This record gives sequence, C-alpha cells and structure tokens, in this order.
Amino acid sequence: MTAYSAMTAEARKAEYAVLTKEFERLKGLGLNLNMARGKPGKEQLDLVSDMTYSLMDRPENFMSGNIDVRNYGEMSGLPAAKELFAEILGCKAEQVFVGGNASLQLMYDTISKAYTHGLLHSERPWCREETVKWLCPAPGYDRHFKITESFGFEMITIPMTADGPDMDAVEEAVKDPAVKGIWCVPKYSNPDGIIYSDETVRRMAGLKPAAPDFTIMWDNAYCVHEFEGEYVEFPDIISACAEAGSPDMVFEFASTSKITLPGAGIACFATSMENLYYMEKLLTIQIISFDKVNQQRHVLFLKNKENVLKLMKKHAAIMAPKFHAVLDALETEIKPAGIAEWCSPKGGYFVSLNAMPGTAKRTLALCKEAGVTMTGAGATFPYGKDPQDSNIRIAPSLPPVAELEQAIAVFCTCLKMAALEKLGV
Amino acid sequence: MTAYSAMTAEARKAEYAVLTKEFERLKGLGLNLNMARGKPGKEQLDLVSDMTYSLMDRPENFMSGNIDVRNYGEMSGLPAAKELFAEILGCKAEQVFVGGNASLQLMYDTISKAYTHGLLHSERPWCREETVKWLCPAPGYDRHFKITESFGFEMITIPMTADGPDMDAVEEAVKDPAVKGIWCVPKYSNPDGIIYSDETVRRMAGLKPAAPDFTIMWDNAYCVHEFEGEYVEFPDIISACAEAGSPDMVFEFASTSKITLPGAGIACFATSMENLYYMEKLLTIQIISFDKVNQQRHVLFLKNKENVLKLMKKHAAIMAPKFHAVLDALETEIKPAGIAEWCSPKGGYFVSLNAMPGTAKRTLALCKEAGVTMTGAGATFPYGKDPQDSNIRIAPSLPPVAELEQAIAVFCTCLKMAALEKLGV
Repeated sequence: MTAYSAMTAEARKAEYAVLTKEFERLKGLGLNLNMARGKPGKEQLDLVSDMTYSLMDRPENFMSGNIDVRNYGEMSGLPAAKELFAEILGCKAEQVFVGGNASLQLMYDTISKAYTHGLLHSERPWCREETVKWLCPAPGYDRHFKITESFGFEMITIPMTADGPDMDAVEEAVKDPAVKGIWCVPKYSNPDGIIYSDETVRRMAGLKPAAPDFTIMWDNAYCVHEFEGEYVEFPDIISACAEAGSPDMVFEFASTSKITLPGAGIACFATSMENLYYMEKLLTIQIISFDKVNQQRHVLFLKNKENVLKLMKKHAAIMAPKFHAVLDALETEIKPAGIAEWCSPKGGYFVSLNAMPGTAKRTLALCKEAGVTMTGAGATFPYGKDPQDSNIRIAPSLPPVAELEQAIAVFCTCLKMAALEKLGV
Repeated sequence: MTAYSAMTAEARKAEYAVLTKEFERLKGLGLNLNMARGKPGKEQLDLVSDMTYSLMDRPENFMSGNIDVRNYGEMSGLPAAKELFAEILGCKAEQVFVGGNASLQLMYDTISKAYTHGLLHSERPWCREETVKWLCPAPGYDRHFKITESFGFEMITIPMTADGPDMDAVEEAVKDPAVKGIWCVPKYSNPDGIIYSDETVRRMAGLKPAAPDFTIMWDNAYCVHEFEGEYVEFPDIISACAEAGSPDMVFEFASTSKITLPGAGIACFATSMENLYYMEKLLTIQIISFDKVNQQRHVLFLKNKENVLKLMKKHAAIMAPKFHAVLDALETEIKPAGIAEWCSPKGGYFVSLNAMPGTAKRTLALCKEAGVTMTGAGATFPYGKDPQDSNIRIAPSLPPVAELEQAIAVFCTCLKMAALEKLGV
C-alpha cells in the first residue's frame, strides 16, 4: 500500500470507494461494541471474585489487630490497609489515608476542600481567589479535566513528551501565583502509556511555584499495571518532594479498581504527615469511617506487594492479547497508509493515537455510525477541545478479543475514510 | 430520699460526703467505659455478620437484572437497592440515590455542593453569599452542627418541643432570605428520641421560605429503629413537600449503618427527580460508581422492608435491656433527687437528659475522672455551646449490660455530686 499522502487523487478515490463498501458491510453487521472506557473485562472480574465470599467467614477475620473492622472508627483507614498501599507505592504507611472505593472521589474531594477551606499552605480558600489556574498535561485523563473545569479553574494545556509533561513549560507556568496545581498520571499515563522519566520526576519534585499551596495531583492509577514485561520500579514522589524541600506539595492517589473490582475496590491518598493531619481534621467532619470490612477483605486477599504483582500477571495474561489485537491491526492497516502515529505501551489501559489533524471527530462519528463507541474526540484535552482534532483514545480492555478485532477493523476503516476525505476524494 | 432542693444545707453536706466516698470507690475500680457515641455493640454486629461471606458466592448473585455489580457503572445505585430504600422510606425508587457507606458523607456533600456550585434553585453558589444562616433544632446531632459550622454558616438554635422543632420559630426564621436550611432527625430525634408529629411534618413541608433554595436536611437515621413496641409508620416528607407545592425543598437521608454494619453498610439520599438530576450531573464529575457489590449484598440479605423489620426486632431485643438499665437507674437514683429530667424513647440510640442548669459540664468531668466517657457537654447545641449547660446525651448501645450498669451508676453519682455542688455544700 502507498502512503495516502503520496497517492494520486484518482488512487485516493478508488481506495475510498473500496473503504466505503467495506464500511457499509460493517454497518450491516449491526455491531454494538465499546472501546470507550478503561473498564475491565468479565474475565478479569472472574479472576478475583472469590474475594467476595471466601474471606470474611471467621470471627478472627473481623479483627485487624484489636480493631473490630465491622464497627465505626479508624477514620483514616485500617493500619493494615495503609501498610499494603504503602508497600505498593513505596511510601510510608503513616502517610496513607485509605478511604472509600474510588480514588477519583478522593481527588475530587481534595480539590473541593481546597476550594471550600483551602489546603495547608493556602492563604485563603480557593473560592476566594480571583482566578485559579491549573496545569493539564494533554493528552490526559478526561475525568481529571472535568473536575478542575467543574470548579471553574482556568486550565492550561501542557504538552506531553516521551518523558512525561514538558517540564520547561511547567517550570515556566508555575511562576504565576494563580497556578495552583497540576494533574499527573506518572506511570502508564492516561492515555499515552508513558512512564515519566526519573528526570521528569526529579524536576516535578523540585518545582518552586509562586503559589505556596501549589499541589501536584499524582494519580498513580497504573502503579502495578504492566501487561507486558516485568514490573517497573518507580520513584516515590512523596520522599522526592520532601528531599527537594517541598514535602507538602504532592497528593498521590491509587486504588485497587483495576487490581480487584472496579467500584468495589479500595482507594487511598498518600501525602506528607502535615497534609494528612490537616485533611483528617476536615474529613472527620464528613464521615465517621469508611468501609473497613472491604479494607480487611482486601488486606486478606491481596496480602502484600509480591502477591499483588502475581495477581497483576494474571490480569496481564488477559490484557496483553487485547492490546496486541489493537496494535497488530494498526501496524497492518494504518502504518502503510501513513495517516496516524501511536504509542505501544507496556502497561496501563489505553492506546493513544494521533490521527491526521482534523480527522479525529470524523473518524469517531463514522465509528459510531457503524456501532463502535469510542472515547469522544477531544476528551483527552482540557474543555474537551483538541486544538488539532487529532488525538483518539482506544480502550481495549472491555470487549473479548473476538469483538475487539471486529471493533478495531471498523476503527481502521473509519480512520482511513476520514483521512482520505481530508486529503480530498 | 428528699429532693435536693428541699434539703437543708447540712443534709446536702451529708449526702455529698456519702457520694464522694462512693465516687472514690468507683474511681478505684479503674473503669474504662464508653457511653459517648451511638455505636452498636458486638452482639448487634454478630447478628448480621454472615452477610459478609454467605451471599456473593454464586455467579448469578453478581448480576442484578442485567447489571454486573462487580464492574463500573450505575452511578446513582443499583435499581434493586433504590427499591429497597424506597420501600423503607415510603418514597419512590426513582427518587433514591444510593451511594457509599455513610449518609453523613452524602449530607456533607450536599452542603458542600450547595457551597461550591449551588443547589437547583440557587441564585449563586453559597460561597458567593454574604451570609448563610442555618436552623439547628437543639438539642440535636453534633455531627450535623459541625458540618454547617465547618462551612462558616451562622447557626440559629431552634428550640425542640415534644412534637419536634418549634414550628412557630421555624416559620418566623425562614422569612430571612439568608436562612438556607434546617437540620432534622424526624423519627427518634438525636438525642431526644422524639417523633415529629404529623402537624410538625405538615408545617415543615408547608414552609414558604424567602430563600428559593432553602433546604430541609431530613436525616431519617432511625426510620426503622424501634427498640420497644411495634414499628411506627411515618409520613413521606418528599410527597408532603410536593403536595405543598415545594417538591425540591427536601433531601432525605438514610443508611443501614444501624441495620447491618456501621461503616460497612449502604447509604442513600432521596429527593425530587429534579433535584436528583441536578445532583447527578455534579456527582458524575466526582465518582464513576459506588460499591455495587455491597449494594447487592444488602439487597440479597435484607430483601424487603418486612424482612428489615424482622431484623430490627432482633436489634431491639439487644437494645431494649440497655435502655432499661439506663432508665431504671435514672428512675431509682435521680428522680427522687429532683435534679434532672429525661425522655423515655421507644427507638433511636439515645437518652437525652436535662440536668440542673449549670451542672452538665461538671457532671461529665467527674464521669471522666471515674473512667466513664460521655458525649461532651454542649455537643448537642450549635458551636458545642449549651447556653444552659444542662443537656447530656447518654448513648447506651455499645457497652454490654453489665458494664452499662456500672457506667450509669457512675453517671448518677456524678450527676448528684454536681447538683449538690451547685446548690451549695
């Protein structure tokens, strides 16, 4: 196949005719496939479901040390659950707050409390600031951007590089005292699957922002989520910030949503002790305690990091073929046409693809027409607006491989049609 | 025994000497007893603990209709869990949002969202209001008052009557457009154990506040929590408000914290559909979904209202002897002295006692000295300040009966000492 850009107008027309026919055939199949969200597949759920009944069946299992996990108390989480997360994240147990089932809710709550009450080093609650600006490395996670958008922050796009956010741009931006923080997914970034380099982590921890309450929101969602190769060690941002003299500059987040069960897992934030004390004083107004039975269930089921990594190998065995189905199709169908670039991640939940500028929306509209739902075009940018109309996030985790192969075939056809329409047919 | 107020100074002195000796003896026992919080006892936890392992053990139990409860989705809760709460509360299933383990967190979040974004009928977010005032029927629940205090609202005390909040005072107060809402525990109010009369509910629903976004926070924490006698039917505040022409004026809250497990239960709010749509739009920014495995566990375990009421009879069998231990001791030890009044509730978690004005703090300080922890004096009033220094909340649920008898003996001794000190010894 020739690259589309090198084709004659006639050759493009001919190619488009072939694709249109194929598109009509695919439409005729009446597909209803979903590659929109990082939702685990049923096989993954089955992998861990015995935890829902096999564990809390002996009186001694209701006890964690001398704490009866069934009753109120231990607002900041079971010490044993803190230890489990601390081992996974490489921080200290006393820096961990285990709360609820969703790290997203903990992130929202952190921003919300900054807005209503201010953070530890805030001069005033952020609702009393004239303007709050926020750094958004993009492409990034749409749900992060929605939070800061919801609070009316002015979002500033920071370009992503192969090493993480463009740190020159970040260092420049934080000179503005209205810039209060940054979203980060440091390991297998959503959607690019990039692991921040040591240099990026070092520069991030070394930031000297003008705002005294500048906060790095370090969403370590994929901290143990390799689907290919061995577990990759990753630096502890909390000690990195402490060593750089800014111990209170970071909140790290994690959950077991993609280790055990999405929505029925446990989540945490980890931060300096000073931040933790400050947040606990606010959180104690809000809740008596989170679900410690589920925390105990997780402690008994997951045991320790070594055991978690073993479990993640089982997830990997399910995930890898799905990613390969996507990447192989892109390699075969799209690469020769020269109409897109993409990353080949070794962990996380996404493949990020940059289509020919101006073709992302059209591609996804065609996909929808043919019964394939994708993450909305633009979603990976602040305000849902990709200035290039180029980035597309592919989430291969949910459909079984056979369905996924169909879905990606549809996607490739639509991507090619959109490119040809752009080039002129 | 003569009433203390009718005693001669000498008789009081003699009585005080006897009490002091008894107090020293009790102190010598090295007690460590707790009547501070409405925390269920171990027997109650044991009553329901098979739900933690006996239910989610069959693949078909992971399905609720066609929803796999293990995966993301159904942000507003499992339809089956909504139905369960709706039957218990007497509202409609589509008015229910099931979220998380703690109704307190849902209440906090409602106030927080009013503050950051405003409610459905708000002219602006409450953080942009000059002043927000809030009605606090007192004695009331300290954790309610802490929430409104935390957001800097000006709290206005509303006296409690035997029928609920003094509605004359409420109707007068809501003429001020800065008054944005009221806390209510309508059935077995915390701490008085009062059931709001039909007339009170009718007048509450019929309020015509100056503020368009005035909100009744209707914490129906003890909706099925009779420990004596039969279940008491209670009007549905949501339809009452709708019939009075103010469908969006109320948010009702409930949880299973004192039906199944405290902290590992499920919680809900119920409100008009319009309010629900509005809140869902905000909540979808914050969380993908709550723990539906636990929702399903509750649906399978609790089944329906009839079965819940059967379970509550078992709780009652544990709770009633504890309340009687308290009430009997008060009747025998305190009534003849004429130094306090108290209610005799038939449900809920508390006995509310009004000591001789100016003696509550001293009584609890003495209790503490003798190893008995009680809810802090003043806690039942806004800002933790009881203008009379009189109200004491007794929470008999946690200690076993034998310990409780010791604890209440200590309490009676301390209450009498404080009264005598006040009268002069």
